Amino acid sequence: MRLARIAHPDGVAFGSIEAEGDNDEAAQVLEIADHPFGQPNFTGRRWPLADVRVLAPILPTKVIAVGRNYTKHAEEFGNEVPADPMIFLKPSTSVIGPNAPIKLPPASSRVDFEGELAVVIGQPVKNVPADRAGAAILGYTVANDVTARDLQSADGQWGRAKGFDTFCPVGPWIATSVDPADLALRSEVDGVVKQDGRTSDLVHTVPELVAFVSSVMTLLPGDMILTGTPEGVGPIEAGQSVSITIDGIGTLTNPVQSA
Amino acid sequence: MRLARIAHPDGVAFGSIEAEGDNDEAAQVLEIADHPFGQPNFTGRRWPLADVRVLAPILPTKVIAVGRNYTKHAEEFGNEVPADPMIFLKPSTSVIGPNAPIKLPPASSRVDFEGELAVVIGQPVKNVPADRAGAAILGYTVANDVTARDLQSADGQWGRAKGFDTFCPVGPWIATSVDPADLALRSEVDGVVKQDGRTSDLVHTVPELVAFVSSVMTLLPGDMILTGTPEGVGPIEAGQSVSITIDGIGTLTNPVQSA
Repeated sequence: MRLARIAHPDGVAFGSIEAEGDNDEAAQVLEIADHPFGQPNFTGRRWPLADVRVLAPILPTKVIAVGRNYTKHAEEFGNEVPADPMIFLKPSTSVIGPNAPIKLPPASSRVDFEGELAVVIGQPVKNVPADRAGAAILGYTVANDVTARDLQSADGQWGRAKGFDTFCPVGPWIATSVDPADLALRSEVDGVVKQDGRTSDLVHTVPELVAFVSSVMTLLPGDMILTGTPEGVGPIEAGQSVSITIDGIGTLTNPVQSA
Repeated sequence: MRLARIAHPDGVAFGSIEAEGDNDEAAQVLEIADHPFGQPNFTGRRWPLADVRVLAPILPTKVIAVGRNYTKHAEEFGNEVPADPMIFLKPSTSVIGPNAPIKLPPASSRVDFEGELAVVIGQPVKNVPADRAGAAILGYTVANDVTARDLQSADGQWGRAKGFDTFCPVGPWIATSVDPADLALRSEVDGVVKQDGRTSDLVHTVPELVAFVSSVMTLLPGDMILTGTPEGVGPIEAGQSVSITIDGIGTLTNPVQSA
């Protein structure tokens, strides 16, 4: 199933996207009552996907991100891969959906895209072992861990550099039945491929990350774990458009604007 | 006004604590309908403070903390005071209230208390200048930025070291009319004074911090900014009790347990 959150003519709702084969042009969104956790209840209402606005697929209570989880990306900045996952938080106020603009803050003169696979949590979980982590996962979406590279270096802690409003685009929807073990991930700026990685290169795998993070903090439904970015990160500038595609999930596209 | 969140015989509610002078022994809690933002509406119900359980005074959507914001604390660990505030996030799942136990995680062998003044935001705000920051503040409470010191050093980023469940005790209530400029702050472990500072030693003042953080991220009602800790931090162990007192606000006490 592909779970989306949409703005339709009567308001905002969760929905399931149903298409014929790979062709989304005639896809329909089937409205889900209340929330998409557990067994969704369908209201019977539906709209053509082309007629609704697709929003961030979920509003998480927290976003946990993982640093240096692809060896070649760690090497890009002369860093070693840490033995334990290096985790940090992005504020929930940084989350935006597909096609919403990334706004470049005046405080930074170098803002980078970072394409990432995001894990979406489906049920409250603490201290789950890796071999049972799958049951806690609702599905997977695409994320852009937007980073003010100059402030990241200057500050030491990354709360500012990765915490600006609009610095966490996610979407376009949550794929619930994809296997995260070996997915192709590509990032493009104005159509030029910049990142071309595979999740099989993750240092700490998805089940290991869910287990690790849940050994620290209780994960709640909707919470997201951003699993790290492959090599090839680079700057984005006002007027450009950045797209991140993960095969089996979809493409997350956001324009870039001055704040 | 002192705003608290309480568990009373019929459920959970916000309330205002009314006492005769400085004596809280006969204090009453006046129930507030819905939420304490804006002009509170009182329901007319009241209970003796001694008969209710005082909870974390608010459940924030995010907790922003500031590192190295007292010169002598920065020096304790051989660090310099950064020119800009160094901010990081603690997860909302780390928040607990007064008298709830701090649970020591097995992954750490050195967990420290850090007594701090916490600013509680009262209305949505972005890019507020320091001279107008006061209007965005609901009030002030006491916080303990509990930190796994060994993991803080090992990880580099502080998401794990400061993010464990129970690592953000706050309370006992929110003082809405205190001036934060020069408050005495004392931390005690089992009655022995460990920290004895004043908020007048803050490198970046409360209005400056609200302005800075709001230049990065939208602050929402209930969000908290932990303003940093003075010198004197140190370890806590299972069986101990840690109390942080800020004059004009109150005392936050938490027992320490093995997880």
